[in-house]
Amino acid sequence: MAVTNFSTERVFAERMDAVDPLAAFRDRFVWADESLIYLDGNSLGPLPRATQIRIAEVVGAEWGAGLVRSWSRWVDLPRQVGDLIGAHLIGAAPGQVLVSDTATVNLYKLACAALDAQPGRGVIVTDDDNFPTDRYVLQGIAAQHGCELRMIHTDMDQGLGEETLQAALDPEVALVSLSHVAYRSGALADMARITQLVHDAGALMLWDLCHSVGAVPVELDSCGADLAIGCTYKYVNAGPGAPAFLYVRGELQEQLRQPVWGWFGQSDQFQMGPRYDPVPGIERFATGTPQIIGTVAVQEGTRLLAEAGMERLREKGIALTSYLIRLADEWLAPRGFTLASPRADARRGAHVCLHHQDAWRISQALISAGVIGDYRMPDRLRLGPTPISTRFTDVWDALDRLRQLAADRSYADLPAEPSRIT
Amino acid sequence: MAVTNFSTERVFAERMDAVDPLAAFRDRFVWADESLIYLDGNSLGPLPRATQIRIAEVVGAEWGAGLVRSWSRWVDLPRQVGDLIGAHLIGAAPGQVLVSDTATVNLYKLACAALDAQPGRGVIVTDDDNFPTDRYVLQGIAAQHGCELRMIHTDMDQGLGEETLQAALDPEVALVSLSHVAYRSGALADMARITQLVHDAGALMLWDLCHSVGAVPVELDSCGADLAIGCTYKYVNAGPGAPAFLYVRGELQEQLRQPVWGWFGQSDQFQMGPRYDPVPGIERFATGTPQIIGTVAVQEGTRLLAEAGMERLREKGIALTSYLIRLADEWLAPRGFTLASPRADARRGAHVCLHHQDAWRISQALISAGVIGDYRMPDRLRLGPTPISTRFTDVWDALDRLRQLAADRSYADLPAEPSRIT
Repeated sequence: MAVTNFSTERVFAERMDAVDPLAAFRDRFVWADESLIYLDGNSLGPLPRATQIRIAEVVGAEWGAGLVRSWSRWVDLPRQVGDLIGAHLIGAAPGQVLVSDTATVNLYKLACAALDAQPGRGVIVTDDDNFPTDRYVLQGIAAQHGCELRMIHTDMDQGLGEETLQAALDPEVALVSLSHVAYRSGALADMARITQLVHDAGALMLWDLCHSVGAVPVELDSCGADLAIGCTYKYVNAGPGAPAFLYVRGELQEQLRQPVWGWFGQSDQFQMGPRYDPVPGIERFATGTPQIIGTVAVQEGTRLLAEAGMERLREKGIALTSYLIRLADEWLAPRGFTLASPRADARRGAHVCLHHQDAWRISQALISAGVIGDYRMPDRLRLGPTPISTRFTDVWDALDRLRQLAADRSYADLPAEPSRIT
Repeated sequence: MAVTNFSTERVFAERMDAVDPLAAFRDRFVWADESLIYLDGNSLGPLPRATQIRIAEVVGAEWGAGLVRSWSRWVDLPRQVGDLIGAHLIGAAPGQVLVSDTATVNLYKLACAALDAQPGRGVIVTDDDNFPTDRYVLQGIAAQHGCELRMIHTDMDQGLGEETLQAALDPEVALVSLSHVAYRSGALADMARITQLVHDAGALMLWDLCHSVGAVPVELDSCGADLAIGCTYKYVNAGPGAPAFLYVRGELQEQLRQPVWGWFGQSDQFQMGPRYDPVPGIERFATGTPQIIGTVAVQEGTRLLAEAGMERLREKGIALTSYLIRLADEWLAPRGFTLASPRADARRGAHVCLHHQDAWRISQALISAGVIGDYRMPDRLRLGPTPISTRFTDVWDALDRLRQLAADRSYADLPAEPSRIT
């Protein structure tokens, strides 16, 4: 699947599609408009056909016909689907992953728990290019706990410098919280090395997997990661606002107590006893009633990725992004675009950013031309050729339209104002 | 709709159904098994037909075809649906209600915010019969904030005594958190009086509306309530794990800062700026990405209740529960059942508890007889004749089967162990 005998002709992309072992997975998704090129699965993944069918079943048969009796099949789903994610997507043995709440709330729960477990340490470390909700949640926790939030600087194109991180680590640090794949540049952090650096400093490591789960193989157990969270509406294709997941390394679970003492974390939940007494396992990190429709969508999305296989998805992801970069080098660099993502395959997730001073207007003109990518502040065009559902010809067609736009400057009359769309 | 010319004959129920102005609403729901009598809408409401259609549209057309572009229609839904709940169900002017997270997480957010806003006061008051997740969440907050959780005793059958509450109020109290309708007895608290008592003590009042929203009219604004939370999978009929809502009185919003500083509460969210700067309005109480499928289900469920009208629903709810109680008096009292809910209509929500020493086994035998109610610790049979979807003949048939069970003691051989089903 490596990009060999590269050529800028469309026939090259056609040949790549013809030998793509994952090509058939595209038809496992709903595509209402075959002429649309979708390079934004990293914001909201497309709808798997199996998920559409399954949601209709859960709504009609399980909720509609089964009524409250269906809770006997639903109640263990958050842990069961967590184990499925652990086994196929993030390298976690059973009993360490739970589908729960949102990525934001899970980050809050785990970061509070980590901080409370280390009363002698009063510093949280994160980086200034981390995803906004991560930075805000950690700011809030630092303010409430009277802690220092140590914000290290990260290059907006190249990702975290390990030396910068190392310089920020000292015996005061309780927790380091970083994204595995940077939301803008797509820079892929070295999870094993960074986790080791953090452990050498005696701190706990919390990984945000939102932009890596389902896009690149993740090996939490073998990297010795302590904590992780991730969303499921991007590469897991579980739909808008589907529930997130959290990971807590088995040996840590008993030591950690999260701040939201909800009834779904309670031992003998339906005894409804007087005192909160959390269950021993991963479900102590649960809070309220889990959203069931979203959880089954996570299950279906995870099954689809498992069937494709994370190794094959990674191989295709590298082939797609490196192909995109080569076309950009050939066609777009002369028009003022520069690569705003790591060039080395091993340092990149499954999306690519291009820098251009008119990125916002270009992203809008590109949508009008039938290609959905997205814009990221301050001047980046983000293109996500999601491995499971994107063809090489999609990349060719998208870049071809982009070079036409860049050549005729048809975007120049558009308003220069960003939208609210995520 | 009052129960007049009461008789224990089935024809009385038939006549009540014939004059029920809300009778047609039953057909707005999916009933897969017409022989099933469902008296557990207070655990999980049935599926509205409109919701089934709407979910299929949101999944197929909005997610499947619209893809990420649909966020432009989704992003304001939590506030729009919040306003709908405010207008039709809980007496709140626009801009004070938000669909968000779970009831558990919302209780955590609002209780933390209330406590932090009153640094000179270190006591939270709740009652020992409050719903478990409420008690546990408040226990957790008290432990983390070094506060006292003052647990007042409430009668398990009759609900909160206002004198008991008054005796617990002093200038140390920051927050009182109570359920409007008790989850077990169905006792209905006097919101206006209790809120006034709490305000007289200088504390803030947080109401849990889980068992009252959609069941009884709620007037948060006119009662001067400060804060409220509620779930939507009971009487709002929004499905398993649908998102909850929260209410913050307008004048309080600027003073309160909730602890989970997520990106959906951020001003200029997609500027993704360096510092958390919450929006001025109710959306500052948002956290992460909202679940969209669940939110549209809340919208449909609320619309249906709005069409029926809360006043008519309340009138029918009283008629159904008082009818149930009269049949129980006639048929079940001689078999060892006693009423475990307030007898006065004005003191009761839309469900009724009956006490019997074999309540668990009886609840299971009743399910086998085609009547779904539920069991509540330690010895209560809970029956919820949801006003929008229950017929008087359903109540007659359910109580008729119950008296047969009680007479032949066919439940006596069942295991005496509670289930995990909520």
